[in-house]
Amino acid sequence: MLEEPEVLAPDPDPDDAYALDIKSVQQVRQAVEEGDREQLIALMEPLHPADIADLLEQIEPGDRRRFVALYGREFDGDILSELDETIREEMIGLLSPQVLAEAVRDLDSDDVVDLLEDLDPEQRDAILGALGASDRAAVQQSLTYPEYSAGRLMQREVVMAPEHWTVGEAIDYLRASDDLPEQFYHIFLVDPKLRPVGKVALGKLMGSSRAVALRTIASDDFRIIPVLQDEGDVAYAFNQYHLISAPVVDETERLVGVITIDDAMAVLEEENEEDILRLAGVSEEASLSDTVLETLRGRATWLFVNLLTAIFASFVISLFSDTIDSMVALAVLMPIVASMGGNAGTQTMTVAVRSIATRDLTGSNALRIVRREIVVGALNGALFGFIMALVAGVWFGVPMLAVVIGSAMLLTQIAAAFGGIAIPLILERLKIDPALASGPFVTTVTDVVGFFAFLGLAAAVLL
Amino acid sequence: MLEEPEVLAPDPDPDDAYALDIKSVQQVRQAVEEGDREQLIALMEPLHPADIADLLEQIEPGDRRRFVALYGREFDGDILSELDETIREEMIGLLSPQVLAEAVRDLDSDDVVDLLEDLDPEQRDAILGALGASDRAAVQQSLTYPEYSAGRLMQREVVMAPEHWTVGEAIDYLRASDDLPEQFYHIFLVDPKLRPVGKVALGKLMGSSRAVALRTIASDDFRIIPVLQDEGDVAYAFNQYHLISAPVVDETERLVGVITIDDAMAVLEEENEEDILRLAGVSEEASLSDTVLETLRGRATWLFVNLLTAIFASFVISLFSDTIDSMVALAVLMPIVASMGGNAGTQTMTVAVRSIATRDLTGSNALRIVRREIVVGALNGALFGFIMALVAGVWFGVPMLAVVIGSAMLLTQIAAAFGGIAIPLILERLKIDPALASGPFVTTVTDVVGFFAFLGLAAAVLL
Repeated sequence: MLEEPEVLAPDPDPDDAYALDIKSVQQVRQAVEEGDREQLIALMEPLHPADIADLLEQIEPGDRRRFVALYGREFDGDILSELDETIREEMIGLLSPQVLAEAVRDLDSDDVVDLLEDLDPEQRDAILGALGASDRAAVQQSLTYPEYSAGRLMQREVVMAPEHWTVGEAIDYLRASDDLPEQFYHIFLVDPKLRPVGKVALGKLMGSSRAVALRTIASDDFRIIPVLQDEGDVAYAFNQYHLISAPVVDETERLVGVITIDDAMAVLEEENEEDILRLAGVSEEASLSDTVLETLRGRATWLFVNLLTAIFASFVISLFSDTIDSMVALAVLMPIVASMGGNAGTQTMTVAVRSIATRDLTGSNALRIVRREIVVGALNGALFGFIMALVAGVWFGVPMLAVVIGSAMLLTQIAAAFGGIAIPLILERLKIDPALASGPFVTTVTDVVGFFAFLGLAAAVLL
Repeated sequence: MLEEPEVLAPDPDPDDAYALDIKSVQQVRQAVEEGDREQLIALMEPLHPADIADLLEQIEPGDRRRFVALYGREFDGDILSELDETIREEMIGLLSPQVLAEAVRDLDSDDVVDLLEDLDPEQRDAILGALGASDRAAVQQSLTYPEYSAGRLMQREVVMAPEHWTVGEAIDYLRASDDLPEQFYHIFLVDPKLRPVGKVALGKLMGSSRAVALRTIASDDFRIIPVLQDEGDVAYAFNQYHLISAPVVDETERLVGVITIDDAMAVLEEENEEDILRLAGVSEEASLSDTVLETLRGRATWLFVNLLTAIFASFVISLFSDTIDSMVALAVLMPIVASMGGNAGTQTMTVAVRSIATRDLTGSNALRIVRREIVVGALNGALFGFIMALVAGVWFGVPMLAVVIGSAMLLTQIAAAFGGIAIPLILERLKIDPALASGPFVTTVTDVVGFFAFLGLAAAVLL
C-alpha cells in the first residue's frame, strides 16, 4: 500500500527531528486516562512500532497498564521487539494470551528468538506455544546456539541458488516462489553440498541479461560467518567491510542462515552503549526504565570498588599525617594533584579502551602508542606542573612548596599516561574486559602516585 | 568474479577474529624494507581496502613512505576512503599526481566528497582536477551542502521509476540501463514533478509478476530525508526505523539522492565515538595516528578546565584550614567523600548524556527520571555513608567524626545524583553539547559539595 510520505522538515533544533514531542505524549496519556479507544488508535496509527515502544517507555506503569487494556488486539509484535527488556517483560505479563499469541505470530524467527532470550521459562513457553509447529522448531533450533553468537542473530529464511544457474533461471525461481523473506538483498550461490560459494546482489541481477551466469556477477566482498562467531565480531565485520548481508554456516560449512546489516547495526549500537556505560562504572544493563532497585544495584557495585580504592588512597595520606599537621597547605593542595592525575588517566584509558575495541590498538603498534602517551603525559605534566607551581607559589608564598607541587604533578601525569594505556592492554591480554575493569585500577594508580609523590616530596624537602 | 570464500574459523580469542595479526604486519614491513614489490603486492592481494588502511595506520611514517613508493599504481582509491584523516592527508601528499588521479576516478561521488572535506585547498584542487567533468560537477554540487548534512552523505546515483509503472516496466527499464549504481536496494517511485512518493524493495520486485503495479508493492516504512537534515538525525532515523535506504529531497521536494544504511552506520559509529571521547574529556578528533602535538592539544584543553575546578575546590578546603589544622584526620578522609561523589556524579551524568543522545530522556519523562536518580543517590548515600561511618569510627575512634563523614557522604551523593542529571538536561536546553560540557560542571558540584559538607559539618560539630 502506498502511504502518504512523511516529509520531515529541517528542524531548527536538529536534536528533536525525530523525538516524540511532549504534546503527543500528553495526548496519548489523556486518551488512555479517559479510556478513549478510538482516539488512542487514531494517535497510534501514524507511529512506527519503534516510536510506540519509546512512548510506552516514557509513560508511567499505571498508564502502560491502561494502554494495554485499551489498545487490545491492535498490539503488534513489532512493538514488543522494540521495547527495553524491563518494560518488555512487564508488557508480556500484561498482554492477554490471545493478544500475545497473535502478536508474536507475525514476527520473523530472529525477532522471536530475541524476545524469548530474556524471558522467564513460563513466559517463554507461553510464546512458544503460540507459534505454529514449523516456526516453533526454527526458534527452538536457534535457541540451541550460544547467546551472543551469530546463530542467535541470523534469520533462517535464506534465498539461495545453485552456483551454475543463470540470471534467467534465478529470476524465474524467485518469481515462482511464494515465501520469499520480507527483506533480502543478495542471492547466495551454493555448491551441491549447500556450502555458500558466492553472493549476487539483487541490483546486479536486475541489471544483467538472462543468459549471464550468476557466478560471473558475484560480489567480490564475499565473507562467510561461522554460526558460533561472537556477535561483536559479526558487527565488526559488517562495519569494517561494508557488508549488507552475509551467509552463516554451521560446523559442516553448510549454509544455515543469513545476517543482515540492520541486525549488525543493532549489535554495534548495543556494544558501544555497553562500553560507554562500563567506562563510567555503570552496569551494562542500565536503562531509564529500570526500577530504583535495579538502578541501585547497577551503580553500587562500582561505587563499592571505588570506596576501597579511595580508602587505600586515604591510607597513603595517613602515612603523612605529621607532614600535613606541620603544613596545612599540603592538605589544601593535594586534591589538585590527584584530580589532575585521575583526569589524565581517564583520558588515556578511554582512548586505549576504544582503540582496543575498534582493533586499532594491536600488538603491532602497542609499544609505539605507549611511548607516545608517555611523551604526551610528560609534556602535560611539565605544562600543568609549571602552572600549578606558579599558583601555589603566589598563593602560599613558599618557593619550595611550588617546586614540590610542580614535580609531583609531572610524576603523576607520567604515571597516569602509563597506567592509562598499560592497564587496558594488560587486562585485554588477561581476557578481562578493559572497559569494565580499567577504571578502578587507573584511579588507584593516579591517586596513590599523586598523594605519595606530593606528600613524600613535601616530607623530604619541606620539613 | 567468484573468489575463494574466506571462511573464518571460530576463533578461540573472539576479539582477534578480524584483527590484523602481528605476523602479517611484520611481513609487510619486511617486504617494504627490502623493496620487494612482488611480495608486497602478493601480501596485499587478499586484503580488503579497509584492512590495508588499518595496516598503513599501524606502521611507522617511514614505512608508509616506502610502501607508497613501492606499491605505486596498485594504490586504490578505496584505501584512501578508509584511512584516518591524519594518515589520509599524509598519503595524499605522498601519492604521485597520476596515481592519485587514477585512485579517485573509481570512487563513488559520496566517497570523493568525503575525501575532499578534510583536505587543504591545494590537495582538493588536485583531486577535483583528476575527475571527469560530470563527476566533478556532481562532487562540487554536493560540496555546496553544509558539512554534516544529508546532502554531503547521499549518493547522487538514484534508481527511480514513475509511480504508475508496473513490475514488468521496471524490470525492462533496469535491464536496459547500463549505468546502474554498484549497490542499490530500492527503486524510488516519483510523481511527474520528480517528488518521491514511495519505494519498492528489489526483493519484492523480483517476487512479483510483471503485471503488478509498483505502487501496490511499495514498502510501508517510507521516510523522506530533507537534504539539509543533520547527519546525526539521519543516522538516528535509520537506526530507529530499520531503514536500508531512504530518498533525499531538496527544498522543492524533488528527489536528489539516496542515503544507504552503510553510510548511516558509519555516522552512528562516529557519533558514538565522539560521545565516548567527549565524556572522558578528549577532543573528538583524537585518533591513534595523531602526532604528539595533536594529542597534547586534544587533551590539554580539558585538563586546563579541570585545573580550574580543582583549584576552586582547593579554595573551599582552604576556608577550613584551621579546622584541618586541629584535626588532621579530616585531611585524610576528605578525598573519600569527594571521590565517591565524583564517581556517582559521573555514573548519573553518563546515563543522562546517553539517554539524551538516544532520545530516551525527553521533556515527557525528565521529571520522573530526576526523581528516580535522587532516590537512588539518597539510597547510595545512606549505604556508603553508613559503611564509611563504621570505617572512620574504627580507624580514628572518634564517634562524632563517624557521624560527620556519614552525613557528608549522604549529602554529596544526593548532590551528585541531582547534578549528574540536571546539568546535562540544562546544557541540552541551552543547545550546548552535554557530552562535551557536563563533566567539569558535575565535578565542580561534587567536589565543592563534598568538601563543604564534610569540613563544614566537622567545623560545626567537632570543634
